[in-house]
Amino acid sequence: MIVVLKNEAKPEQIENLKTWLQSMNIGTHISVGVNHTIVGLVGDTSNVDMDLIGSLDIVEKVQRIQEPFKNANRKFHQSRLVVDINGTKIGGGEFQIIAGPCSVESREQICYVAESVKKSGAGFLRGGAFKPRTSPYAFQGLHGEGIELLLEAKKLTGLPIVSEIMNISHLPLFEKVDVVQVGARNMQNFDLLKELGKTDKVVLLKRGLANSIDELLMSAEYIMAGGNENVILCERGIRTFETRTRNTLDLSIIPVLKKLTHLPVVIDPSHALGYSYMVKSMALAATAAGADGLMIEVHNNPSKALCDGAQSLTPEAFDDVAKAVFQIRPFACKFE
Amino acid sequence: MIVVLKNEAKPEQIENLKTWLQSMNIGTHISVGVNHTIVGLVGDTSNVDMDLIGSLDIVEKVQRIQEPFKNANRKFHQSRLVVDINGTKIGGGEFQIIAGPCSVESREQICYVAESVKKSGAGFLRGGAFKPRTSPYAFQGLHGEGIELLLEAKKLTGLPIVSEIMNISHLPLFEKVDVVQVGARNMQNFDLLKELGKTDKVVLLKRGLANSIDELLMSAEYIMAGGNENVILCERGIRTFETRTRNTLDLSIIPVLKKLTHLPVVIDPSHALGYSYMVKSMALAATAAGADGLMIEVHNNPSKALCDGAQSLTPEAFDDVAKAVFQIRPFACKFE
Amino acid sequence: MIVVLKNEAKPEQIENLKTWLQSMNIGTHISVGVNHTIVGLVGDTSNVDMDLIGSLDIVEKVQRIQEPFKNANRKFHQSRLVVDINGTKIGGGEFQIIAGPCSVESREQICYVAESVKKSGAGFLRGGAFKPRTSPYAFQGLHGEGIELLLEAKKLTGLPIVSEIMNISHLPLFEKVDVVQVGARNMQNFDLLKELGKTDKVVLLKRGLANSIDELLMSAEYIMAGGNENVILCERGIRTFETRTRNTLDLSIIPVLKKLTHLPVVIDPSHALGYSYMVKSMALAATAAGADGLMIEVHNNPSKALCDGAQSLTPEAFDDVAKAVFQIRPFACKFE
Amino acid sequence: MIVVLKNEAKPEQIENLKTWLQSMNIGTHISVGVNHTIVGLVGDTSNVDMDLIGSLDIVEKVQRIQEPFKNANRKFHQSRLVVDINGTKIGGGEFQIIAGPCSVESREQICYVAESVKKSGAGFLRGGAFKPRTSPYAFQGLHGEGIELLLEAKKLTGLPIVSEIMNISHLPLFEKVDVVQVGARNMQNFDLLKELGKTDKVVLLKRGLANSIDELLMSAEYIMAGGNENVILCERGIRTFETRTRNTLDLSIIPVLKKLTHLPVVIDPSHALGYSYMVKSMALAATAAGADGLMIEVHNNPSKALCDGAQSLTPEAFDDVAKAVFQIRPFACKFE
Repeated sequence: MIVVLKNEAKPEQIENLKTWLQSMNIGTHISVGVNHTIVGLVGDTSNVDMDLIGSLDIVEKVQRIQEPFKNANRKFHQSRLVVDINGTKIGGGEFQIIAGPCSVESREQICYVAESVKKSGAGFLRGGAFKPRTSPYAFQGLHGEGIELLLEAKKLTGLPIVSEIMNISHLPLFEKVDVVQVGARNMQNFDLLKELGKTDKVVLLKRGLANSIDELLMSAEYIMAGGNENVILCERGIRTFETRTRNTLDLSIIPVLKKLTHLPVVIDPSHALGYSYMVKSMALAATAAGADGLMIEVHNNPSKALCDGAQSLTPEAFDDVAKAVFQIRPFACKFE
Repeated sequence: MIVVLKNEAKPEQIENLKTWLQSMNIGTHISVGVNHTIVGLVGDTSNVDMDLIGSLDIVEKVQRIQEPFKNANRKFHQSRLVVDINGTKIGGGEFQIIAGPCSVESREQICYVAESVKKSGAGFLRGGAFKPRTSPYAFQGLHGEGIELLLEAKKLTGLPIVSEIMNISHLPLFEKVDVVQVGARNMQNFDLLKELGKTDKVVLLKRGLANSIDELLMSAEYIMAGGNENVILCERGIRTFETRTRNTLDLSIIPVLKKLTHLPVVIDPSHALGYSYMVKSMALAATAAGADGLMIEVHNNPSKALCDGAQSLTPEAFDDVAKAVFQIRPFACKFE
Repeated sequence: MIVVLKNEAKPEQIENLKTWLQSMNIGTHISVGVNHTIVGLVGDTSNVDMDLIGSLDIVEKVQRIQEPFKNANRKFHQSRLVVDINGTKIGGGEFQIIAGPCSVESREQICYVAESVKKSGAGFLRGGAFKPRTSPYAFQGLHGEGIELLLEAKKLTGLPIVSEIMNISHLPLFEKVDVVQVGARNMQNFDLLKELGKTDKVVLLKRGLANSIDELLMSAEYIMAGGNENVILCERGIRTFETRTRNTLDLSIIPVLKKLTHLPVVIDPSHALGYSYMVKSMALAATAAGADGLMIEVHNNPSKALCDGAQSLTPEAFDDVAKAVFQIRPFACKFE
Repeated sequence: MIVVLKNEAKPEQIENLKTWLQSMNIGTHISVGVNHTIVGLVGDTSNVDMDLIGSLDIVEKVQRIQEPFKNANRKFHQSRLVVDINGTKIGGGEFQIIAGPCSVESREQICYVAESVKKSGAGFLRGGAFKPRTSPYAFQGLHGEGIELLLEAKKLTGLPIVSEIMNISHLPLFEKVDVVQVGARNMQNFDLLKELGKTDKVVLLKRGLANSIDELLMSAEYIMAGGNENVILCERGIRTFETRTRNTLDLSIIPVLKKLTHLPVVIDPSHALGYSYMVKSMALAATAAGADGLMIEVHNNPSKALCDGAQSLTPEAFDDVAKAVFQIRPFACKFE
């Protein structure tokens, strides 16, 4: 961290700043320039409050040089993370499609969809048992029963399963769930992240609608700081002024994350856009850009889906998308 | 809800739509126009998925006419809500300042600040014991001990206290806390909201950084649907492209909420802006616009605050702001 | 357009509304429902002010059903527009890369870059002679001399050229320029658009940083309403809260525009992102998503570029990107 | 400007950087720290491209310390600008309301409104003769005739007039117009700004929908760099995700601009919000926050206004707002 002092900073004020930083175990390297005095902070500055230092009377500007995340930082991980669930791998060159309905609705539905998407080449089955809905009057999921049905579909097809957790007290229900998803609305539910950090569950962490890429990495850091290094990051759109799409899918997160972190990156075009007619185009774009995986909503009868039907594909439409994705994948952007 | 059908919709397709809506207990009123056929939905449409209907092949557009919130809706509440905590009232013409430090740090600190802000006219003491911080390495609050210290300050000054809850399992610690705050990052932590809906706690609900005013009201609805009608709404800035302020304080929420709901509206300029030099100007603006209250950060030594010091006022600066606020309050905008 | 009236609307008020609409040559079709009376507007509603109608005392809501753009509307154009410049085609299945430096700096520079990008397969040469710069103290372009140098490079390579116009009085200088670019900051400089509508120039219209897709189409409509139908649309990023990229590249504009209009769609990842390391990934994404073309900045010596060097590729890096783009193009998303 | 170099930067690379900067007349002050080497740039860095330096291989980060605007900078202006038009003053403690219709429609209309708003205490009359409309099919203003009618209303009432210019070729028509407005869509029409900088016209410059406060100041700098120092800045809302208001009125611009510049700041709640019911609340807020003036739309018959009627006040409603504004003004926030 670099602190630029105002011209009028007095020696005793600079001395006070040094002393205060030392009380936080931060050393200082001071260089007096023509126009400004610059203080370089030496040591672990990841918990130094930039805004606070910037508010001091004698300070002109503050700039962080090191990223405030460590466990999620590419600099400290020579090889990219490959998540391996009984042989199904994602990350570090391994690509997967996660497919399935927004909500688990019935045994018939989830088993039918699971078999369909497996045939089309999906590597994971997704399905919501606990659904975060804007309205308290909307369908909230089948809860424990939904998890049971997912496990049946897993047994039937062999596909590892992904499902969203909304409350840490539900963790026992997720014992046999392969990947626990943290939704966009809970990306900064820090208590939930901390608890997941104490488990050995693979966590799929979705970016919040108004969260920066750095904040997404800091939330991954919450999980990883607890000892759980199995985190998959997922982009599902950010909120902007545009209304022709539900959210704006920020695909540039792919090269940015590939530079900053070793964690796998998955793109969810279904939730980001909200309309099924855009899914194929954006699934191909995400694949070409170098994503490690896709998350796509598939429903046997979108018009009757209990939630988010507008963005679901039929199994037939998904098959068409998956074919195109696997065809384009060999030509995708590669990262060191 | 109004559904506009495409010209090419066939009679049997329209019949199917009718039948499907009936299965959700929604009646229909169909009118055939020159260019379009319009279907009016009759009944409780608050849990009908607009996006799903919009995605049907025969549908051109969908529009919601009724707001999807009921308990929080002004239409069903003739008089505005006045929250009354042992005689300290807020809402419906009663105005209060909630003041105190971002985090409770020590007995000395919280008691000193409490006495100072009380002298300046604050009606509530705020202080964080559980702190949502972007970084897992930043100070996370004193937890139970922080609540204890707040209660001591309450005993000393008589000020009712406001503190943030991050995890429903901590609820027992909040037994004597007068107002339980739900922070911006948890505005759509629906499980937390539902549990608070089962209590009789006054809840101060902060708007999320990327949440619309309607979503704020839907989150209030989650609490109120459980039977707890004591909800105070709080604006603390939304995320935009502007970088001279931490967030953009959306003061137009005041007239909008005054039209849509009977719940009290509080403005937090300290968190929204991130710099103490702007607080006075925005506190006066919020008061003039007709807010029911302000939430302002005050710290005895902002340069040493363990978190968010940059935005805190000293007790002296707060006294100046409070004087100006009380002076301008009689000339504020009034709403029916 | 559909106007939903409030329950309390009186017959004489409805009659007044009808009369007023008739004075604008808009017919009405009124249907009285159980809860609401609905007025369907018949005729050309493209110049009816929705906000104004929405503000009338008796009106609950207003919804536009037809898009307010006509000339740019896919519904009225069976086949997609193919822009053909002496045999170099873009749109309707024809794909091109437009490449070149941000600013024309010297004969040597522009000729070297032109020959390089031609060798790599670019179909158009771009180069700025008039540069919109945030600061009045920054390099503003070589103006007329820049155009002359572009024409020399065109003569040398045969590549048609693209250059930005900032002021309609400069139009005579653009006589031999093949494609006239309207930059993001001038997307709603309506006087400039109108004048270009009176010419037969091909216009490449860039989306403004805060403009919706519909507004982009309305600006195309300004040009087309004047009789000039040769408009190419270009996405170059929208402004959001994210700071790891200069702007957020909204690739979902591709399927949206393909649905709404017959005009070609070009993506400019260089300006959108601001850093050259992301260009390859996003160029591949845009191609896969089904764009009709790419606009990519190439400079012989990015570190010495007079403007926007940070986002430029070297000719060697561009060659690598172009190869990958042409390789992936056959597998791109196709639209009816 | 401070440039932080990477650890791996070699001495000869640093030497090259120094030489390159010297070629732009920028001196350097290099200090070698424990972890990083820091280069301080000495001289006028306002035209140094930060992004370009940041893209160099050896550079870790770049930070600007001085603002890139000079003429508009508070640091170089001891006293705040007071614009004085024949005795009607705005800025530096002088407060004015600018009121009038969106568009001039007829002699009767503009004269009636002018007399009404004068009676209510407005200091300026506004009225559009050239209207920037999203649709080419919407009413575009009376042009020269509109200016004539405004001048008649000025003669009748003595109110100085404000009107928008969209095209520099129209400047002769504005000879007797007291304040020339540059609209939000033209805030970065740099050619227009430069030409206005050569005149002695008072310019009211509106912030663009997606423009930062710093960009607004840079656009003022364009005008002032030409020698015209009479610039009034105006906030009229920025574009965000919120849909209950047309735009989000960013009132925190008031304390920010008061810190950064000596130029007067005017707030336009009518255009920002789009609905007349919010105007009073936000007019009071802007006044309390310390704005130098307000711009408010007033129309004799809002329901028949040819544009933007939804946001206009009747003369009676304006009178009520103006009374409340003048009553609250003495208690507004003051700045040094």
